[in-house]
Amino acid sequence: MKIVLSVNAGSSSVKISVYSVEARNAEPHQLAEAQVNGLTAPPPQVEYSRNDGGGKGGKTVVYKDKKVTDIGDDKAKIDSQDDAFAYLLRLFVDDKDLKEISSHDDIAIVTHRIVHGGDYTQPQIVVGDTYEHIEALNDLAPLHNAKSLEIVRSCLKQLPKATNVACFDSQFHATLPEHIRTYPIDPATAKSNMLRKYGFHGLSYAFITKAVADFLGKPVEETNIIALHLGSGASACAIRGGKSWDTSMGLTPLAGLPGATRSGSVDPSLVFHYASDVGKLSPASTKDLHISRAEEILNKEAGWKALTGTTNFGEIAGSDKPSHQLAFDLFVDRVAGFVGSYYVTLKGQVDALVFAGGIGERSDRLRAAVVDQCSCLGFSIDSAANGSGHLTDVVTDLTGKSGSGGAGQHRVLVCQTDEQLEMAREGSADESLWADSK
Amino acid sequence: MKIVLSVNAGSSSVKISVYSVEARNAEPHQLAEAQVNGLTAPPPQVEYSRNDGGGKGGKTVVYKDKKVTDIGDDKAKIDSQDDAFAYLLRLFVDDKDLKEISSHDDIAIVTHRIVHGGDYTQPQIVVGDTYEHIEALNDLAPLHNAKSLEIVRSCLKQLPKATNVACFDSQFHATLPEHIRTYPIDPATAKSNMLRKYGFHGLSYAFITKAVADFLGKPVEETNIIALHLGSGASACAIRGGKSWDTSMGLTPLAGLPGATRSGSVDPSLVFHYASDVGKLSPASTKDLHISRAEEILNKEAGWKALTGTTNFGEIAGSDKPSHQLAFDLFVDRVAGFVGSYYVTLKGQVDALVFAGGIGERSDRLRAAVVDQCSCLGFSIDSAANGSGHLTDVVTDLTGKSGSGGAGQHRVLVCQTDEQLEMAREGSADESLWADSK
Repeated sequence: MKIVLSVNAGSSSVKISVYSVEARNAEPHQLAEAQVNGLTAPPPQVEYSRNDGGGKGGKTVVYKDKKVTDIGDDKAKIDSQDDAFAYLLRLFVDDKDLKEISSHDDIAIVTHRIVHGGDYTQPQIVVGDTYEHIEALNDLAPLHNAKSLEIVRSCLKQLPKATNVACFDSQFHATLPEHIRTYPIDPATAKSNMLRKYGFHGLSYAFITKAVADFLGKPVEETNIIALHLGSGASACAIRGGKSWDTSMGLTPLAGLPGATRSGSVDPSLVFHYASDVGKLSPASTKDLHISRAEEILNKEAGWKALTGTTNFGEIAGSDKPSHQLAFDLFVDRVAGFVGSYYVTLKGQVDALVFAGGIGERSDRLRAAVVDQCSCLGFSIDSAANGSGHLTDVVTDLTGKSGSGGAGQHRVLVCQTDEQLEMAREGSADESLWADSK
Repeated sequence: MKIVLSVNAGSSSVKISVYSVEARNAEPHQLAEAQVNGLTAPPPQVEYSRNDGGGKGGKTVVYKDKKVTDIGDDKAKIDSQDDAFAYLLRLFVDDKDLKEISSHDDIAIVTHRIVHGGDYTQPQIVVGDTYEHIEALNDLAPLHNAKSLEIVRSCLKQLPKATNVACFDSQFHATLPEHIRTYPIDPATAKSNMLRKYGFHGLSYAFITKAVADFLGKPVEETNIIALHLGSGASACAIRGGKSWDTSMGLTPLAGLPGATRSGSVDPSLVFHYASDVGKLSPASTKDLHISRAEEILNKEAGWKALTGTTNFGEIAGSDKPSHQLAFDLFVDRVAGFVGSYYVTLKGQVDALVFAGGIGERSDRLRAAVVDQCSCLGFSIDSAANGSGHLTDVVTDLTGKSGSGGAGQHRVLVCQTDEQLEMAREGSADESLWADSK
């Protein structure tokens, strides 16, 4: 048995899930989960729960939405991702009811979610010059990879005995065919500068693919789905024979669907017309992180935040303000457009349209609107099932009556995706990690 | 009766079509057509034909692919768009068999194709400060509007008695609904900088809509089509009730489908990663024309030229070289993606999928590949009709047997689009132009 930590560092948060894994390729069993939020809007807040069979859903919630300053711990000064990581580790060690971790040395494997993995097609154990290789990918996605790399450094320092494994959000899309991943630009420049479609949210799509294939009782390699990971970052993926065939994000997560603060695809010329200071470095740039102001605007100051003033999609979907209605209609239009496009790229061989991610799992109004727009493709949603609220299963069938008729019909599903679990699976799968326990 | 000239200035060419129009809203009757090509690759070449009932198709070809230096005319020095315009006017005046034009004064109306019309929803007669208003739009599309404006200036100088009418490639798309034309960026910036989806190829789509409605025997306002204008510039348009509902180009013609030298949509972040000199002004920039080098690369040095070395799509479609096959597959993928997306936005209410433009009208291989990819939507092509070569009618039905069954089926059509004729129609329609002849 090994203890595996799945670490996910956002721009303002650090989340760690703790799993025990009995043997290579055994399903990870979650023991606990902890999170620090609000690093960029202090004081930060902490959440901590333990899967011990108690409480609701077998979970005991120890802290929820607590300010760290209120927990009564004078050492709880959290100013950085490094601090947050150390603090969360201490929560696990200090929790007497989490018997599996009594010291740092009990942690065998730490898996890290890295957004951009360049040409990596599988998780990488961070040894030798792997860290430098991953660091070099920063140039491709400076806004996205930097925070994850901070945590890898923290972990190398704070857990010197653990094995670190980098899991990439792009790796699931390594199967994109050449005519889909290629940009029609000079091939020599594209090659030397690594300019192509990569795609992201791959940990989520890998989870969704397995969960949906399992739900449908089909082998993964025969499963075709259109998957929508709709959260504050949103993307779509055409999955053919269990593999990524096309996806809406591109060289970076900016392309494709709009998100909470992200524009999604816009005319590439827009950046030249956006403001007179295009091409200047953003004030947020540092020596290691060169971001033009325009790139920052399109990633951090656009999306529905720009249109409505809120990043809370639930608020947008529930409002009849013209600005909110516009943002909702715009999002439905863009999502439905990708469904149509991916229906064609899969030549209509679609087992299911799958909603996932914070918005995909929670907004019944969005799901209803997208499926209604796509009803001409044979999709249909059951209003009662769609509106029934809390999801209990990993996959829930929302297929409507007119869409569930025959074998050729397409299902509409919602999947509670779990990137942390997928990381624990993928990060603990390498044979070399289990050499000592054979 | 009025003589109407339709003038279309490209980056390296000037084309003029001559029409007689009997009365307001009467169909223009073409009298002659002349073109100078190769302005940027001297010596330029000239083509000239007269519609006089003689020759093939009622046309007498006077010059074809002739170098102007070979025509034996010592005044035929053509170094600029202004020179080319003057030269073409002289061809018409000097042609004794073109009785309708014996002097410049016989020309009543000159219509100009202007790519970007900003918020203009209809053609504009160039009087007073209209020219300055149109010139200001140059900022939105510096690579596209400048050449047309040169010709408007030439015309104001060389034909002082004619009425100049600006016809915009964007005006057909004035009907795009707000949730489709809006970019999810700060609305105040979008408004002040006029940043939204405009769309182009509108003269072609207006022609196609009327021609297809006529062919189908349906009122224009009940006609729903997915139209593909595929030429060296390529775009797609969802036309709902005879009006533009969505289109693939955006703020500028760069967005959407790739073209001969244009990348089409790429991750907007690509421009920041493309080269170290992003944001620098291109050497081609002048005081009036500020283009960043990256914008120039994506518009002029990308597309299938970059992938294959040729701008000739026929050569690409006919080759089995890996680079050419990649470009072909990539183009089919992107075109079919828009068909799927627009099928959904039209909720499946699609009378026809229409191919037009140089590639759409000539490449049977491309048409077959796109329709095959979209067969899951109910489109089907008749191989014999598709491969039969020369098109004689304005609209030709290529619908395959499996797609032509019932009333709900979608047709596959090819339309010989005619932007020059559409300009003559739209440019001569204003009531004020006919006040003297009532």
